[in-house]
Amino acid sequence: MDNSRTLFEKVGAEAVFTEQPDLRQYLTGFETSFGYVLTDKNATVFYTDSRYFEGAKKALLGKDIEVKLYDGSLEKILKGYKEIAIPIAKTYHTDYEKLAGYGLKIVDSGKAFDEIMAVKHGYETENIRLACNVADSAFVSLLPRIKEGMSENDVAAELEYLMRRNGASGTSFSTIVAFGKNSSVPHHETGNDKLKFGDIALIDFGCKVNGYCSDCTRTFLFGDDNKHGEFKTAYNHVLKAHMLVKERLVPGDSGKVADGYAREYFKEYGLDKFFTHALGHGIGINVHEKPVLSPRSEDKLLDNMVFSDEPGVYFEGKFGIRIEDTVMLSGGKVVSLTDSDKNLIIL
Amino acid sequence: MDNSRTLFEKVGAEAVFTEQPDLRQYLTGFETSFGYVLTDKNATVFYTDSRYFEGAKKALLGKDIEVKLYDGSLEKILKGYKEIAIPIAKTYHTDYEKLAGYGLKIVDSGKAFDEIMAVKHGYETENIRLACNVADSAFVSLLPRIKEGMSENDVAAELEYLMRRNGASGTSFSTIVAFGKNSSVPHHETGNDKLKFGDIALIDFGCKVNGYCSDCTRTFLFGDDNKHGEFKTAYNHVLKAHMLVKERLVPGDSGKVADGYAREYFKEYGLDKFFTHALGHGIGINVHEKPVLSPRSEDKLLDNMVFSDEPGVYFEGKFGIRIEDTVMLSGGKVVSLTDSDKNLIIL
Repeated sequence: MDNSRTLFEKVGAEAVFTEQPDLRQYLTGFETSFGYVLTDKNATVFYTDSRYFEGAKKALLGKDIEVKLYDGSLEKILKGYKEIAIPIAKTYHTDYEKLAGYGLKIVDSGKAFDEIMAVKHGYETENIRLACNVADSAFVSLLPRIKEGMSENDVAAELEYLMRRNGASGTSFSTIVAFGKNSSVPHHETGNDKLKFGDIALIDFGCKVNGYCSDCTRTFLFGDDNKHGEFKTAYNHVLKAHMLVKERLVPGDSGKVADGYAREYFKEYGLDKFFTHALGHGIGINVHEKPVLSPRSEDKLLDNMVFSDEPGVYFEGKFGIRIEDTVMLSGGKVVSLTDSDKNLIIL
Repeated sequence: MDNSRTLFEKVGAEAVFTEQPDLRQYLTGFETSFGYVLTDKNATVFYTDSRYFEGAKKALLGKDIEVKLYDGSLEKILKGYKEIAIPIAKTYHTDYEKLAGYGLKIVDSGKAFDEIMAVKHGYETENIRLACNVADSAFVSLLPRIKEGMSENDVAAELEYLMRRNGASGTSFSTIVAFGKNSSVPHHETGNDKLKFGDIALIDFGCKVNGYCSDCTRTFLFGDDNKHGEFKTAYNHVLKAHMLVKERLVPGDSGKVADGYAREYFKEYGLDKFFTHALGHGIGINVHEKPVLSPRSEDKLLDNMVFSDEPGVYFEGKFGIRIEDTVMLSGGKVVSLTDSDKNLIIL
């Protein structure tokens, strides 16, 4: 059963109407910058413009999706329906009002999308795995290229280039490179600070392959000036917290329980107050999607979900450490999809 | 007068409330991933979280913007107001409903944003100019690196790397590289087709510097196999159309009139039916903003507006040509901000 049919049955509305690029990609299986997907009990139709029409027909051949050229009238497409489902939280107010203005009863498809997109198909995990492999090997190639005096931007440029040359279509978010005390800011804006001997370096990076994302963070030392005892101790705690999640997490755990595996460990060492963000988030077409792994999340973690395991601690004005893999629940166990070395690297 | 005050006076509502990242950047002068800007007759307050609080205080020192730590309650921030202005077309329905649920009368700030953001301040054109210079010099460096057998993705990777190393924080949109007949698709998705001797190559690229965008397209020949008479003739027509816009456009022209300078010229040669998109779009914090230069646009073009001049012709299954500069109306004249050679390059 194709994704649009699965969604339709889950939503239970007369028709399901989708225009958001990420959701459209999920339903049709490929990326477009314009189009509408409409599913009712009889059929799924993908309306798009002349730029994508031929490509869409070819790509969707043999699938249960009909391709039609959009003639400019949304009202005409939706004529005859009394009720449509749209992802309300992702719909602009103006678009909502337009649809409501056609006399349609509007119900929400957002929760259904979140739930079905969180559990990945085989072709989706394959694409995520490709994106993770590209990122892993780019990072391995990057390390020997890192030299004293390079700026954060320089290092980001090298890494992005390596991912691109390895087959990525682009990054899945703005690459974060943080040197020294910049690493204590969880979402540091990569800048022009230069790398010095003895600096801590934190790199949070991801790429897209076939429309799917990877997400990975590594923290390492650029030369050891023997002043990093505190850092090394904290590093080992973060790594331990990261590994504990992988060891303990089982299908059926909530996002809260998963987050707790790391947070409780940190608590034993008085580090929990420095773990200032959530443990993780789902990864797929979007680099942030369901499930959420956080102290308040009731999301249930299931086999074939892909998400990040990214504990971190941040000591303001001093340093920060984050160790993140993209992981998957598979056959009841956590499997790493990004998997470059997580033992402390000293360049 | 700062941008938030200008906006407030233009909108004329009791308070102006803004949460969209691009608009927030315009009002505060720097990029953040979370925050609210609220302006009333007394003051402008930027609410943000602990990640940005210290940085915001430093960046906004001396400006008429107060920084406050957001405590999680939007309702509290908006308490006491009867009316707020938000950019309705850029507001999600759920957020709109939340605000309306506080008993606020909601009016639109979208049109006011469009209008004031279209006319650039000096610091804005300086940043756009930097982004254009970075893109120009990256393109010049790219040309000698282009070799037979490289894929479209390879070329895009090189160009993006060069822009990044020249100081860009990233691209302003997904780089388009199209070889051979792929160039006949105006928004070709860069792929793995390999460059061959005699291929036409179309490259549409842009980068961001200090939060501002550039946008440029060049079409050239990779080796001349003497089979490109038709292409060369068409190239000269596109270049002529591009230059005519620069020569004729004056402040006060509408977007329709500007588009007509190119479209009417194409008509003389029977090429207008192959010019399948608009002439141009405003460029600033967003790579597509006001004004619109198209056959239906009533937007008035004014001094200090920055926009693209990008005529193109596309012959399906054969080839396409687009020549685009980011330009500015300055002192009554059109000035190129991207300005690498537009005469036909044969590598």
